[in-house]
Amino acid sequence: MNNKIGTYTFVVDDFYADQTGTLGWGALGRFLLNCSNSHSMNMGIGMGKYDNNVYMWVITRLIVNLHEPIHKGQTFKMETWISKVYYSFMNREYVMMNNDSKVIGTAFAVWALIDAKTRQTVNLINMFGSDMEQIVYEKTNGLSFDKKRVKLSDSFEHSNLRVKFGDIDINQHMNSIRYIEHALDLFPSELYFHHFLNRIEVQYGQETSFNDHLTLVNNKMDDNSMYVEFRKESGEPACKIRLYFS
Amino acid sequence: MNNKIGTYTFVVDDFYADQTGTLGWGALGRFLLNCSNSHSMNMGIGMGKYDNNVYMWVITRLIVNLHEPIHKGQTFKMETWISKVYYSFMNREYVMMNNDSKVIGTAFAVWALIDAKTRQTVNLINMFGSDMEQIVYEKTNGLSFDKKRVKLSDSFEHSNLRVKFGDIDINQHMNSIRYIEHALDLFPSELYFHHFLNRIEVQYGQETSFNDHLTLVNNKMDDNSMYVEFRKESGEPACKIRLYFS
Repeated sequence: MNNKIGTYTFVVDDFYADQTGTLGWGALGRFLLNCSNSHSMNMGIGMGKYDNNVYMWVITRLIVNLHEPIHKGQTFKMETWISKVYYSFMNREYVMMNNDSKVIGTAFAVWALIDAKTRQTVNLINMFGSDMEQIVYEKTNGLSFDKKRVKLSDSFEHSNLRVKFGDIDINQHMNSIRYIEHALDLFPSELYFHHFLNRIEVQYGQETSFNDHLTLVNNKMDDNSMYVEFRKESGEPACKIRLYFS
Repeated sequence: MNNKIGTYTFVVDDFYADQTGTLGWGALGRFLLNCSNSHSMNMGIGMGKYDNNVYMWVITRLIVNLHEPIHKGQTFKMETWISKVYYSFMNREYVMMNNDSKVIGTAFAVWALIDAKTRQTVNLINMFGSDMEQIVYEKTNGLSFDKKRVKLSDSFEHSNLRVKFGDIDINQHMNSIRYIEHALDLFPSELYFHHFLNRIEVQYGQETSFNDHLTLVNNKMDDNSMYVEFRKESGEPACKIRLYFS
C-alpha cells in the first residue's frame, strides 16, 4: 500500500445515473471533487483556515477519460494522488477501477490554492512548507490536452445562461462540475443514447458569481468532438470544454 | 432491530453542500430517492422487469421537514419504511438522525408503481401479492400537507424553463428532485443565507419529457412561504411546490 494514494468507493445508485442508465457526469464529477478534498485533508493540506485567512482549492484544468460506461448498480473505486507541486498549483491523478480491479477510467486535474477573500493564488511551499513535497507520488496517467488551437466554424451556435443559486458551491463561485452539466444540457438526449461520451477536457478561466450572465458558444469540431465555451459579459472566458464521443 | 426498516448512511462531503455550507436539497433529495429504491429492492418490490414488462416507482407526493441545517462534514443516517399500501400507492416514511441518534429531520412520500411503457399505475397487491402487506410497518411521522387552497396574489411572477438532458432520470421523465432544484433557483442566494429552508411540500402532476416547455409561476404566500408551480404547455400542472422558511 502506497500511503500517498487515497482510495474512495462509490456506488452508482439508480438516481446517480443519467437518462441512459449510466453514471451521470454530475455525480461522477462531484465524487471526484469530494475525493480530492478528502485526500487533501488526509495529507494535511485541506482547505480551511491558516494564519487567520481562509484558503480553498479550486480546479483550473480537468481531463476525464472513461474506457467504458459505468452502469447503475455498479460499485467502483477511485484512487487519487498528487503527482506534482509547483508554485500555486498541484497536479492530481485519478484512476477508476471496477470490482475486478480493472481500470475503467483515468483523470487528471490541476488544482490551485487561493485566498478566499482576495481570490489570489498562494505559493504552496510558502504555505505548507517543503514537507509538502513528501506527499507527492510522481506517477502519472499521461493524460494531456489537445494542443491544437480551437477554430470556431461559421456554424457555431450560442445561448445564454444566468448563474443561479444551485450553480454556486461552498467556494462562492460556479461549481466546476456545473459547467460540464450545462455544456451537456446544450445537446439533445439522443446524442447520449447513440454515442458514448468517453472524454472531457476542461480549462477553467475567470470565476463566475450568482446572477452573472454568460454566453455559451458551442461548435462541432472536425474530429466530431463538441467544443463549448462559457464567456462572461466582459468577453473573458470562464470555461472551455471539449467533449469527445465514440 | 425492526427488519422492515432500512437504514442508510450519508456523509455530507464538501461538494454535496450548497453555497451556505449546508447539505444541498439536490444531494439530500437524491439520497432520499436512492434509499427508497434500495429499500424497495431489499423488500422484494424493487423496480425492474416482472411478467415481461418493466415497472418503475415514481414519487407523487413529498414532504421533507428539517429540524436543523445539516452541515458539510456531517454524517447522518436515514431510516425508511413503508407505512401503508393502497391500490397503486404506498406511503413511505423517513427519519434522519445525526451521529448522536438525535432526530434532525423527517420526511413522507407517496410512491406509485407505473408500467414504464403505458405510464399507467399498477395495482400493488395484484402485482406483488398480498405478501406485500407483510412489509408494512404502520408507524408514521404524522406529516401532512397544508390543506388550504393556494390563492395566487396579483403579484405572482413567471418564468420559462425548457427540460434538458440533465433534468431527465432513468425513468425517462424530469427527475422529481430537479423540480425542487429549479424552484430554489428562482430566488437569490441571499434568501438562503438569511433564512433556513426547513420544510418543502411537493405535489407531482403530469410527467414532463426532454425539450418540454414549462412555465414556472412563483408567488409569496401570506405565511411567508413561497409557492412554485410548474405548468406544461397544455396548462396542466407538472409540479406544485411549497417552500417554508424560518
